[in-house]
Amino acid sequence: MLYPTPIAKLIESYSKLPGIGVKTATRLAFYTIGMEDEVVNEFAKNLLAAKRELSYCSICGNLTDQDPCAICQDDTRDKFTILIVEDSRDVSAMENIQEYHGLYHVLHGLISPMNGIGPDDINLKSLLTRLMDSEVSEVIVATNATADGEATSMYISRVLKPAGIKVTRLARGLAVGADIEYADELTLLRAIENRTEL
Amino acid sequence: MLYPTPIAKLIESYSKLPGIGVKTATRLAFYTIGMEDEVVNEFAKNLLAAKRELSYCSICGNLTDQDPCAICQDDTRDKFTILIVEDSRDVSAMENIQEYHGLYHVLHGLISPMNGIGPDDINLKSLLTRLMDSEVSEVIVATNATADGEATSMYISRVLKPAGIKVTRLARGLAVGADIEYADELTLLRAIENRTEL
Repeated sequence: MLYPTPIAKLIESYSKLPGIGVKTATRLAFYTIGMEDEVVNEFAKNLLAAKRELSYCSICGNLTDQDPCAICQDDTRDKFTILIVEDSRDVSAMENIQEYHGLYHVLHGLISPMNGIGPDDINLKSLLTRLMDSEVSEVIVATNATADGEATSMYISRVLKPAGIKVTRLARGLAVGADIEYADELTLLRAIENRTEL
Repeated sequence: MLYPTPIAKLIESYSKLPGIGVKTATRLAFYTIGMEDEVVNEFAKNLLAAKRELSYCSICGNLTDQDPCAICQDDTRDKFTILIVEDSRDVSAMENIQEYHGLYHVLHGLISPMNGIGPDDINLKSLLTRLMDSEVSEVIVATNATADGEATSMYISRVLKPAGIKVTRLARGLAVGADIEYADELTLLRAIENRTEL
Protein backbone atom coordinates (compact mmCIF):
# COMPACT_ATOMS: atom_id res chain seq x y z
CA MET A 1 0.00 0.00 0.00
CA LEU A 2 1.00 3.58 -0.47
CA TYR A 3 -1.58 6.36 -0.01
CA PRO A 4 -5.36 5.95 0.18
CA THR A 5 -6.86 6.29 -3.32
CA PRO A 6 -8.30 9.82 -2.94
CA ILE A 7 -4.94 11.29 -2.01
CA ALA A 8 -3.04 9.24 -4.58
CA LYS A 9 -5.34 10.65 -7.25
CA LEU A 10 -4.90 14.20 -6.00
CA ILE A 11 -1.12 13.74 -6.02
CA GLU A 12 -1.39 12.56 -9.61
CA SER A 13 -3.40 15.64 -10.56
CA TYR A 14 -0.95 18.00 -8.90
CA SER A 15 2.02 16.34 -10.56
CA LYS A 16 0.55 17.07 -13.99
CA LEU A 17 1.28 20.76 -13.39
CA PRO A 18 4.53 22.11 -14.84
CA GLY A 19 7.54 22.11 -12.54
CA ILE A 20 5.77 20.01 -9.92
CA GLY A 21 7.27 16.60 -9.29
CA VAL A 22 5.87 13.80 -7.17
CA LYS A 23 7.46 15.06 -3.93
CA THR A 24 6.02 18.56 -4.28
CA ALA A 25 2.68 17.14 -5.47
CA THR A 26 2.55 14.99 -2.33
CA ARG A 27 3.29 17.99 -0.13
CA LEU A 28 0.58 20.00 -1.87
CA ALA A 29 -1.95 17.17 -1.63
CA PHE A 30 -1.38 16.74 2.10
CA TYR A 31 -1.57 20.48 2.56
CA THR A 32 -4.85 20.53 0.65
CA ILE A 33 -6.38 18.02 3.03
CA GLY A 34 -5.56 20.33 5.91
CA MET A 35 -7.12 23.37 4.20
CA GLU A 36 -10.59 24.73 5.01
CA ASP A 37 -13.41 22.98 3.13
CA GLU A 38 -14.49 26.31 1.75
CA VAL A 39 -11.08 27.14 0.30
CA VAL A 40 -10.81 23.78 -1.45
CA ASN A 41 -14.35 24.05 -2.84
CA GLU A 42 -13.48 27.49 -4.16
CA PHE A 43 -10.28 26.09 -5.71
CA ALA A 44 -12.20 23.34 -7.53
CA LYS A 45 -14.81 25.85 -8.68
CA ASN A 46 -12.14 28.25 -9.95
CA LEU A 47 -10.44 25.48 -11.90
CA LEU A 48 -13.66 24.60 -13.70
CA ALA A 49 -14.67 28.22 -14.21
CA ALA A 50 -11.31 29.18 -15.70
CA LYS A 51 -11.60 26.38 -18.26
CA ARG A 52 -15.24 27.10 -19.01
CA GLU A 53 -15.38 30.88 -19.08
CA LEU A 54 -12.12 31.82 -20.72
CA SER A 55 -11.45 31.89 -24.43
CA TYR A 56 -9.26 33.80 -26.83
CA CYS A 57 -10.39 37.12 -28.28
CA SER A 58 -11.37 36.62 -31.91
CA ILE A 59 -9.63 39.87 -32.84
CA CYS A 60 -6.36 40.01 -30.93
CA GLY A 61 -6.04 36.47 -29.51
CA ASN A 62 -5.78 37.70 -25.92
CA LEU A 63 -7.21 35.54 -23.15
CA THR A 64 -10.62 36.90 -22.21
CA ASP A 65 -13.95 36.16 -20.60
CA GLN A 66 -15.83 38.19 -23.24
CA ASP A 67 -15.43 38.39 -27.01
CA PRO A 68 -14.05 40.75 -28.26
CA CYS A 69 -11.85 41.31 -25.21
CA ALA A 70 -12.04 44.40 -22.99
CA ILE A 71 -9.06 46.01 -24.73
CA CYS A 72 -10.36 45.51 -28.27
CA GLN A 73 -13.74 46.88 -27.16
CA ASP A 74 -12.28 49.94 -25.45
CA ASP A 75 -12.94 52.98 -27.68
CA THR A 76 -10.52 55.17 -25.75
CA ARG A 77 -7.50 53.14 -26.86
CA ASP A 78 -5.22 54.21 -29.68
CA LYS A 79 -6.34 52.21 -32.75
CA PHE A 80 -3.24 53.13 -34.76
CA THR A 81 -0.77 51.02 -32.85
CA ILE A 82 -0.62 47.27 -32.33
CA LEU A 83 1.84 45.69 -29.91
CA ILE A 84 2.69 42.08 -30.69
CA VAL A 85 3.40 39.69 -27.83
CA GLU A 86 3.96 35.99 -27.40
CA ASP A 87 1.22 35.31 -24.87
CA SER A 88 -1.45 36.86 -22.65
CA ARG A 89 0.90 37.16 -19.70
CA ASP A 90 2.93 39.63 -21.73
CA VAL A 91 -0.22 41.69 -22.29
CA SER A 92 -0.70 41.88 -18.52
CA ALA A 93 2.93 42.81 -17.94
CA MET A 94 2.57 45.63 -20.46
CA GLU A 95 -0.77 46.80 -19.06
CA ASN A 96 0.75 46.91 -15.60
CA ILE A 97 3.08 49.76 -16.51
CA GLN A 98 0.04 51.82 -17.68
CA GLU A 99 2.11 53.51 -20.36
CA TYR A 100 0.91 51.80 -23.53
CA HIS A 101 -2.57 52.68 -24.74
CA GLY A 102 -2.75 50.97 -28.13
CA LEU A 103 -4.05 47.52 -29.11
CA TYR A 104 -2.43 44.11 -28.84
CA HIS A 105 -1.96 40.99 -30.89
CA VAL A 106 -1.14 37.73 -29.13
CA LEU A 107 0.84 35.20 -31.18
CA HIS A 108 0.46 32.18 -28.86
CA GLY A 109 3.98 31.12 -29.66
CA LEU A 110 7.07 32.21 -31.53
CA ILE A 111 8.56 31.19 -34.85
CA SER A 112 11.20 28.63 -33.98
CA PRO A 113 13.10 27.17 -36.92
CA MET A 114 14.97 24.85 -34.53
CA ASN A 115 11.70 23.29 -33.36
CA GLY A 116 10.01 23.33 -36.75
CA ILE A 117 7.51 26.03 -35.76
CA GLY A 118 6.84 28.26 -38.75
CA PRO A 119 4.78 31.44 -39.29
CA ASP A 120 1.67 29.36 -40.01
CA ASP A 121 1.83 27.61 -36.65
CA ILE A 122 1.30 30.77 -34.61
CA ASN A 123 -1.46 33.39 -34.59
CA LEU A 124 0.13 35.51 -37.35
CA LYS A 125 -2.27 35.15 -40.27
CA SER A 126 -5.02 36.88 -38.32
CA LEU A 127 -2.66 39.80 -37.72
CA LEU A 128 -2.19 40.25 -41.46
CA THR A 129 -5.97 40.08 -42.06
CA ARG A 130 -6.42 42.50 -39.22
CA LEU A 131 -3.91 44.96 -40.68
CA MET A 132 -5.28 44.73 -44.20
CA ASP A 133 -8.25 47.02 -43.71
CA SER A 134 -7.21 49.00 -40.67
CA GLU A 135 -5.64 52.35 -40.01
CA VAL A 136 -2.76 50.89 -38.04
CA SER A 137 0.40 52.90 -38.63
CA GLU A 138 2.83 51.26 -36.22
CA VAL A 139 3.39 47.69 -35.14
CA ILE A 140 5.58 47.26 -32.05
CA VAL A 141 7.13 43.81 -31.82
CA ALA A 142 7.47 42.92 -28.14
CA THR A 143 8.62 39.32 -28.34
CA ASN A 144 11.15 38.03 -25.80
CA ALA A 145 14.80 38.86 -26.37
CA THR A 146 15.60 35.25 -27.24
CA ALA A 147 16.62 33.58 -30.50
CA ASP A 148 13.00 32.61 -31.26
CA GLY A 149 11.81 36.07 -30.28
CA GLU A 150 14.33 37.64 -32.66
CA ALA A 151 13.41 35.26 -35.49
CA THR A 152 9.74 36.14 -35.06
CA SER A 153 10.52 39.82 -34.90
CA MET A 154 12.61 39.65 -38.10
CA TYR A 155 9.89 37.76 -39.93
CA ILE A 156 7.16 40.21 -38.94
CA SER A 157 9.26 43.16 -39.97
CA ARG A 158 10.06 41.55 -43.36
CA VAL A 159 6.37 40.93 -44.04
CA LEU A 160 4.97 44.26 -42.84
CA LYS A 161 7.56 46.78 -44.01
CA PRO A 162 6.71 46.41 -47.72
CA ALA A 163 3.10 47.23 -46.80
CA GLY A 164 4.29 50.61 -45.55
CA ILE A 165 3.68 49.90 -41.87
CA LYS A 166 6.25 51.18 -39.39
CA VAL A 167 7.63 48.21 -37.46
CA THR A 168 9.52 48.85 -34.22
CA ARG A 169 10.68 46.62 -31.41
CA LEU A 170 11.38 47.05 -27.71
CA ALA A 171 14.78 48.53 -26.88
CA ARG A 172 17.64 46.19 -26.02
CA GLY A 173 20.11 47.25 -23.38
CA LEU A 174 21.00 46.96 -19.73
CA ALA A 175 18.05 46.11 -17.49
CA VAL A 176 17.40 48.84 -14.93
CA GLY A 177 19.42 48.06 -11.83
CA ALA A 178 21.73 45.71 -13.74
CA ASP A 179 25.44 45.45 -13.01
CA ILE A 180 27.69 45.92 -16.05
CA GLU A 181 30.05 43.39 -14.50
CA TYR A 182 27.43 40.65 -14.71
CA ALA A 183 25.77 41.61 -17.98
CA ASP A 184 26.26 39.07 -20.76
CA GLU A 185 28.29 40.06 -23.82
CA LEU A 186 25.38 40.33 -26.24
CA THR A 187 23.47 42.60 -23.90
CA LEU A 188 26.52 44.83 -23.50
CA LEU A 189 27.00 44.89 -27.26
CA ARG A 190 23.38 45.99 -27.79
CA ALA A 191 23.71 48.52 -24.98
CA ILE A 192 26.69 50.15 -26.73
CA GLU A 193 25.11 50.01 -30.17
CA ASN A 194 21.89 51.58 -28.97
CA ARG A 195 23.44 54.14 -26.65
CA THR A 196 21.39 57.31 -26.22
CA GLU A 197 22.46 60.91 -25.83
CA LEU A 198 22.26 62.42 -22.36
CA MET B 1 -7.03 45.90 -15.78
CA LEU B 2 -4.96 42.86 -15.06
CA TYR B 3 -6.33 39.38 -15.81
CA PRO B 4 -9.94 38.45 -16.60
CA THR B 5 -11.76 37.51 -13.38
CA PRO B 6 -11.80 33.71 -13.87
CA ILE B 7 -8.02 33.54 -14.23
CA ALA B 8 -7.40 36.06 -11.45
CA LYS B 9 -9.47 33.86 -9.14
CA LEU B 10 -7.60 30.73 -10.19
CA ILE B 11 -4.26 32.47 -9.57
CA GLU B 12 -5.51 33.39 -6.12
CA SER B 13 -6.44 29.76 -5.40
CA TYR B 14 -3.07 28.46 -6.57
CA SER B 15 -1.18 31.02 -4.53
CA LYS B 16 -2.82 29.72 -1.35
CA LEU B 17 -0.75 26.54 -1.70
CA PRO B 18 2.50 26.38 0.27
CA GLY B 19 5.64 27.52 -1.52
CA ILE B 20 3.68 28.91 -4.45
CA GLY B 21 3.96 32.65 -4.93
CA VAL B 22 2.01 34.84 -7.32
CA LYS B 23 4.44 34.31 -10.23
CA THR B 24 4.27 30.53 -10.01
CA ALA B 25 0.52 30.64 -9.42
CA THR B 26 0.13 32.69 -12.59
CA ARG B 27 2.22 30.22 -14.57
CA LEU B 28 0.14 27.32 -13.20
CA ALA B 29 -3.14 29.09 -13.94
CA PHE B 30 -2.18 29.79 -17.54
CA TYR B 31 -0.95 26.25 -17.93
CA THR B 32 -4.27 24.99 -16.54
CA ILE B 33 -6.18 26.87 -19.21
CA GLY B 34 -4.16 25.07 -21.86
CA MET B 35 -4.81 21.64 -20.32
CA GLU B 36 -7.38 19.17 -21.65
CA ASP B 37 -10.90 19.76 -20.28
CA GLU B 38 -10.94 16.22 -18.99
CA VAL B 39 -7.73 16.60 -16.99
CA VAL B 40 -8.95 19.79 -15.33
CA ASN B 41 -12.34 18.24 -14.51
CA GLU B 42 -10.53 15.31 -12.97
CA PHE B 43 -8.31 17.68 -10.97
CA ALA B 44 -11.34 19.53 -9.57
CA LYS B 45 -13.05 16.22 -8.76
CA ASN B 46 -9.95 14.90 -7.01
CA LEU B 47 -9.66 18.04 -4.90
CA LEU B 48 -13.22 17.67 -3.66
CA ALA B 49 -12.95 13.90 -3.21
CA ALA B 50 -9.76 14.16 -1.19
CA LYS B 51 -11.41 16.60 1.21
CA ARG B 52 -14.65 14.62 1.40
CA GLU B 53 -13.45 11.04 1.54
CA LEU B 54 -10.35 11.26 3.70
CA SER B 55 -10.30 11.33 7.45
CA TYR B 56 -7.98 10.26 10.24
CA CYS B 57 -8.07 6.71 11.56
CA SER B 58 -9.73 6.70 14.98
CA ILE B 59 -7.14 4.25 16.27
CA CYS B 60 -3.77 5.33 14.89
CA GLY B 61 -4.48 8.78 13.44
CA ASN B 62 -3.24 7.84 9.98
CA LEU B 63 -4.89 9.44 6.95
CA THR B 64 -7.42 6.99 5.53
CA ASP B 65 -10.50 6.57 3.40
CA GLN B 66 -11.95 3.95 5.77
CA ASP B 67 -12.09 3.78 9.57
CA PRO B 68 -10.20 2.00 11.08
CA CYS B 69 -7.48 2.35 8.42
CA ALA B 70 -6.25 -0.54 6.29
CA ILE B 71 -3.20 -1.06 8.50
CA CYS B 72 -5.13 -1.15 11.79
CA GLN B 73 -7.62 -3.58 10.19
CA ASP B 74 -4.93 -5.88 8.81
CA ASP B 75 -4.82 -9.01 10.98
CA THR B 76 -1.53 -10.18 9.52
CA ARG B 77 0.38 -7.28 11.05
CA ASP B 78 2.42 -7.54 14.23
CA LYS B 79 0.22 -6.15 17.03
CA PHE B 80 3.09 -5.99 19.52
CA THR B 81 4.93 -3.10 17.98
CA ILE B 82 3.85 0.49 17.38
CA LEU B 83 5.95 2.89 15.34
CA ILE B 84 5.36 6.54 16.14
CA VAL B 85 5.64 9.11 13.36
CA GLU B 86 4.95 12.79 12.93
CA ASP B 87 2.56 12.55 9.98
CA SER B 88 0.98 10.24 7.40
CA ARG B 89 3.71 10.85 4.86
CA ASP B 90 6.13 9.18 7.26
CA VAL B 91 3.85 6.14 7.37
CA SER B 92 4.07 5.90 3.58
CA ALA B 93 7.84 6.31 3.59
CA MET B 94 8.09 3.48 6.10
CA GLU B 95 5.62 1.25 4.24
CA ASN B 96 7.61 1.78 1.05
CA ILE B 97 10.61 -0.12 2.40
CA GLN B 98 8.35 -3.13 3.13
CA GLU B 99 10.39 -4.08 6.16
CA TYR B 100 8.22 -2.97 9.06
CA HIS B 101 5.11 -5.04 9.72
CA GLY B 102 3.82 -3.60 13.00
CA LEU B 103 1.28 -0.86 13.67
CA TYR B 104 1.62 2.91 13.57
CA HIS B 105 0.67 5.93 15.57
CA VAL B 106 0.56 9.31 13.87
CA LEU B 107 1.19 12.32 16.13
CA HIS B 108 0.15 15.09 13.71
CA GLY B 109 2.92 17.29 15.01
CA LEU B 110 5.84 17.29 17.38
CA ILE B 111 6.36 18.65 20.85
CA SER B 112 8.04 21.99 20.34
CA PRO B 113 8.84 23.94 23.51
CA MET B 114 10.14 26.83 21.38
CA ASN B 115 6.76 27.17 19.66
CA GLY B 116 4.69 26.46 22.74
CA ILE B 117 3.46 23.09 21.45
CA GLY B 118 3.15 20.70 24.34
CA PRO B 119 2.25 16.99 24.66
CA ASP B 120 -1.46 17.83 24.83
CA ASP B 121 -1.39 19.63 21.48
CA ILE B 122 -0.48 16.52 19.46
CA ASN B 123 -2.09 13.11 19.10
CA LEU B 124 -0.32 11.61 22.13
CA LYS B 125 -3.13 11.05 24.64
CA SER B 126 -4.76 8.51 22.33
CA LEU B 127 -1.47 6.60 22.20
CA LEU B 128 -1.48 6.24 25.99
CA THR B 129 -5.11 5.08 25.98
CA ARG B 130 -4.25 2.70 23.17
CA LEU B 131 -1.31 1.24 25.09
CA MET B 132 -3.23 0.88 28.32
CA ASP B 133 -5.10 -2.28 27.44
CA SER B 134 -2.95 -3.68 24.65
CA GLU B 135 -0.24 -6.26 24.31
CA VAL B 136 2.23 -3.81 22.77
CA SER B 137 5.75 -4.61 23.91
CA GLU B 138 7.80 -2.16 21.88
CA VAL B 139 7.27 1.40 20.80
CA ILE B 140 9.62 2.66 18.08
CA VAL B 141 9.90 6.43 18.01
CA ALA B 142 10.47 7.48 14.40
CA THR B 143 10.26 11.25 14.67
CA ASN B 144 12.52 13.40 12.51
CA ALA B 145 16.12 13.86 13.68
CA THR B 146 15.47 17.51 14.56
CA ALA B 147 15.33 19.33 17.89
CA ASP B 148 11.55 18.96 18.05
CA GLY B 149 11.78 15.34 17.00
CA GLU B 150 14.29 14.67 19.79
CA ALA B 151 12.16 16.51 22.36
CA THR B 152 9.13 14.43 21.40
CA SER B 153 11.16 11.25 21.48
CA MET B 154 12.54 12.04 24.95
CA TYR B 155 9.07 12.84 26.26
CA ILE B 156 7.56 9.60 24.95
CA SER B 157 10.37 7.54 26.37
CA ARG B 158 10.02 9.23 29.80
CA VAL B 159 6.28 8.51 29.88
CA LEU B 160 6.33 4.94 28.57
CA LYS B 161 9.41 3.44 30.21
CA PRO B 162 7.93 3.39 33.73
CA ALA B 163 5.01 1.39 32.27
CA GLY B 164 7.49 -1.33 31.30
CA ILE B 165 7.25 -0.75 27.56
CA LYS B 166 10.44 -0.97 25.55
CA VAL B 167 11.00 2.34 23.77
CA THR B 168 13.47 2.48 20.88
CA ARG B 169 14.21 5.05 18.23
CA LEU B 170 15.59 4.98 14.71
CA ALA B 171 19.38 4.79 14.47
CA ARG B 172 21.34 7.99 14.01
CA GLY B 173 24.42 7.91 11.80
CA LEU B 174 25.67 8.58 8.33
CA ALA B 175 23.01 8.42 5.62
CA VAL B 176 23.74 5.69 3.08
CA GLY B 177 25.84 7.20 0.32
CA ALA B 178 26.87 10.15 2.49
CA ASP B 179 30.33 11.68 2.34
CA ILE B 180 32.07 11.95 5.70
CA GLU B 181 33.65 15.16 4.46
CA TYR B 182 30.25 16.81 4.16
CA ALA B 183 28.52 15.26 7.16
CA ASP B 184 27.68 17.74 9.90
CA GLU B 185 29.41 17.44 13.27
CA LEU B 186 26.42 16.14 15.21
CA THR B 187 25.82 13.39 12.68
CA LEU B 188 29.47 12.36 12.83
CA LEU B 189 29.33 12.39 16.63
CA ARG B 190 26.27 10.08 16.61
CA ALA B 191 27.91 7.88 13.99
CA ILE B 192 30.96 7.35 16.22
CA GLU B 193 28.89 6.86 19.38
CA ASN B 194 26.65 4.30 17.72
CA ARG B 195 29.36 2.50 15.75
CA THR B 196 28.59 -1.17 15.13
CA GLU B 197 30.89 -4.17 15.01
CA LEU B 198 31.75 -5.55 11.60
